[in-house]
Amino acid sequence: MQSHDLKQIIKNADHAINQENFDDLMNFYSEDAILVVKPGMLAKGKAEIRRAFEAIANYFNHSLIVNQEKMEIIETGDTALVIAKAILSANQKKDSEFSMERTATYVFKKEVDGTWRCVIDNSYGAELLQ
Amino acid sequence: MQSHDLKQIIKNADHAINQENFDDLMNFYSEDAILVVKPGMLAKGKAEIRRAFEAIANYFNHSLIVNQEKMEIIETGDTALVIAKAILSANQKKDSEFSMERTATYVFKKEVDGTWRCVIDNSYGAELLQ
Repeated sequence: MQSHDLKQIIKNADHAINQENFDDLMNFYSEDAILVVKPGMLAKGKAEIRRAFEAIANYFNHSLIVNQEKMEIIETGDTALVIAKAILSANQKKDSEFSMERTATYVFKKEVDGTWRCVIDNSYGAELLQ
Repeated sequence: MQSHDLKQIIKNADHAINQENFDDLMNFYSEDAILVVKPGMLAKGKAEIRRAFEAIANYFNHSLIVNQEKMEIIETGDTALVIAKAILSANQKKDSEFSMERTATYVFKKEVDGTWRCVIDNSYGAELLQ
């Protein structure tokens, strides 16, 4: 099952975020990927997405840890929808502890080289409607 | 903006559901589309999706009305993620009134003919994780 591939890919992407290895992280995104930085603010393309992750890392004083606790993957052809319970934690958000749970929505696309890449990264899920 | 196209397309699809015009409705889906019939039960491809809609229409004694109250669309290249507040109501569900709200997640793909078609129809959204 390709779903297992996607779970591993997302796990590897979380690892890259947690290590602040943004060179590796950018390999998980398509060239025209969109990241929802926060509701109403989108980063589009690898350069903007990288800058957003750098800003987020700074905001959390380089202590952010992201992990997906649960995941459901619906896949057909070269498209996959991932619904995930994402856990974010940081021990140094401006000197206070921080932990939150988000219901995230990701869309992946299998590119012509056979690699799944994230095209839409919406860690806010349905919070966008609020 | 193509987002407006998608809003109209989804409105037209809801109209087809409400009219039980399943010939028209199937035009909104890609050949390999997946419909989440309920958590754990998927319909794949137009033939299965059509049978699922016919069963749903029967279940509600042909009184189901679907409408999207709010919608957020994130679109890049030939892929779009739609997060919607869907309202379902029926006045004859086995002789009782019925109304519910769902936070739905749809993925659309622009096909080579330039038409957006639904590839993943998950009206349960993050309920899949429960």
